[in-house]
Amino acid sequence: MASRPKALGNELSLVRLIGRLAARVPARDVVVGIGDDAAVLRLAGFQAQARLILSTDMMIEGSHFLRNLHPPRAVGYKALARALSDLAAMGAKPVACLLSLALPKDLDRRWLLEFLRGFTRASARWNVPLVGGDLGGAEQVMCDVVVVGQASPRHLLTRAGARPGDWIVVSGSLGGAALGLESRRGPAWKRHLYPEPRLQLGIALRPRLGARAAIDISDGLLIDLHRLCLASGVSAELSQHPPRFAGANLKQVLSGGEDYELLFAVPPNRRVPAQLCGVPLTVIGRFERGRPGRIRLLGRELEPAGWDHFGSVLATSTDAELGGFATGRSEVGQ
Amino acid sequence: MASRPKALGNELSLVRLIGRLAARVPARDVVVGIGDDAAVLRLAGFQAQARLILSTDMMIEGSHFLRNLHPPRAVGYKALARALSDLAAMGAKPVACLLSLALPKDLDRRWLLEFLRGFTRASARWNVPLVGGDLGGAEQVMCDVVVVGQASPRHLLTRAGARPGDWIVVSGSLGGAALGLESRRGPAWKRHLYPEPRLQLGIALRPRLGARAAIDISDGLLIDLHRLCLASGVSAELSQHPPRFAGANLKQVLSGGEDYELLFAVPPNRRVPAQLCGVPLTVIGRFERGRPGRIRLLGRELEPAGWDHFGSVLATSTDAELGGFATGRSEVGQ
Repeated sequence: MASRPKALGNELSLVRLIGRLAARVPARDVVVGIGDDAAVLRLAGFQAQARLILSTDMMIEGSHFLRNLHPPRAVGYKALARALSDLAAMGAKPVACLLSLALPKDLDRRWLLEFLRGFTRASARWNVPLVGGDLGGAEQVMCDVVVVGQASPRHLLTRAGARPGDWIVVSGSLGGAALGLESRRGPAWKRHLYPEPRLQLGIALRPRLGARAAIDISDGLLIDLHRLCLASGVSAELSQHPPRFAGANLKQVLSGGEDYELLFAVPPNRRVPAQLCGVPLTVIGRFERGRPGRIRLLGRELEPAGWDHFGSVLATSTDAELGGFATGRSEVGQ
Repeated sequence: MASRPKALGNELSLVRLIGRLAARVPARDVVVGIGDDAAVLRLAGFQAQARLILSTDMMIEGSHFLRNLHPPRAVGYKALARALSDLAAMGAKPVACLLSLALPKDLDRRWLLEFLRGFTRASARWNVPLVGGDLGGAEQVMCDVVVVGQASPRHLLTRAGARPGDWIVVSGSLGGAALGLESRRGPAWKRHLYPEPRLQLGIALRPRLGARAAIDISDGLLIDLHRLCLASGVSAELSQHPPRFAGANLKQVLSGGEDYELLFAVPPNRRVPAQLCGVPLTVIGRFERGRPGRIRLLGRELEPAGWDHFGSVLATSTDAELGGFATGRSEVGQ
């Protein structure tokens, strides 16, 4: 009873713990479980080729947003947009969403109304109907968004599958969201507030480019590339700086996160077009043999600094479970 | 900027608001949306007869449990069990779950480990693999459980469908969970801590009894019966007191909630057996014509007192959306 409390540990160790416990329950219908952007199920009621894709994403006041800084409409919009980004990374088409909301009793009703308007705007824009959820009382605003998607195996992408020699390709430009959070103005602020899940692009990646693996850049290029490398058992050699959002510095580009661009592997015999589905594409290097997860930029080895919800920066790790369960990012608070 | 904040309003008004906004997005694949125990989707990738059932259920420290009262293993167990109860009420078979967890930085790791052990115990018991989720930091422990189920239209039940003349049937006995929360000992405390979703029974209700509508008793017999009546457009005439958990008083039986028994409608020409799937069944009255949602017990009209997360007791209402979006119940705190 009176023994000293044990530290919670970092996010990686928690995900490991959860993965270990979850592995005790047989999962016949599960194609991809804990450890990717989303879970993939092959259900008895499905046609042989159809896969169900599921992901959840939390947004918590004080951690992912501040009530006195972020417009509530943007918070609602982003809550759904970032969850959809996980589906984009799997090559899935969204079909529905659910919203669980924990609200303080003294919350201004207008805040909630604006939040819901933003959520509805995103829901209408990507044609993802809200079909259910839950309400509860709490001291902070917290929301958890569940997105449901479908994909055929012909479109489905996971983090595993990149091979040595494949091109490392990134969509759009990076660092904008991090710059926006610092500057709080201009197009960068807008990008921080209203991210754009690359849904069409994600669905096109396999049929159009033969992409073999993908991840969305939610926590930063380096940490997400590191995760993809670990899952694929490869290392990465970046031969050029990634495309930079106007005004962003290199740190914001490499580790800023929340850009929700796609990072993916394309076989060396495929030509990567300058753009696809209206989104610019840039080859920034190649996957290689070598220590899984290692990243080099212009010949120099980098540490994949990332975000940990529980206070410590994630160390380089060879644990392939990293980041799959927990793809949320604490961006603002603490 | 300086205008007075507007009150959040009660849960009913929030659910209405959300339902109104959600209705703006066309939902082709949605068979049942906001307003039932779970959402039902008919997806393009499904075989014609298969339906996907989805529900989310939050458990929030201070509201649904207290960290210094409830054993963490029970909190984890119950988090999944009560979400599964929503699937039971739909006649669905669970296939997978996801877990989003918001944790305070200073949480004792042993608390989390016990929570996860309890969750895993429930996951193994009902064969519902954990396939994903999210992690975040917060001031309170909050978890949101997503359950995914399947059902054929032959098994599927909603709150709508009860007809005048149908038997009102309840499974098991009521008031145990509420008694347990007060007494904190014996079988009632165990029932409060480790509820039993009636999954097998839910799947059997339509094929075996021809049941036409069902709901799980999460918030209390009266409020949940009221919801079923509203959705079906009928009133209820209770001709006897519902089966009482040993030691529970009438208030606990009628409004206690958290018993997670099933309440359902059976056509008058069907015989209701004394038990089904090992669970006792009791006919407690009949559905009737008359003002939708009205409940009478031994001829006396009752108010369906229920729980509202935002401070006010739910008034009698003719709004059929009531309670569907938000099936969580604040049981302990505030």
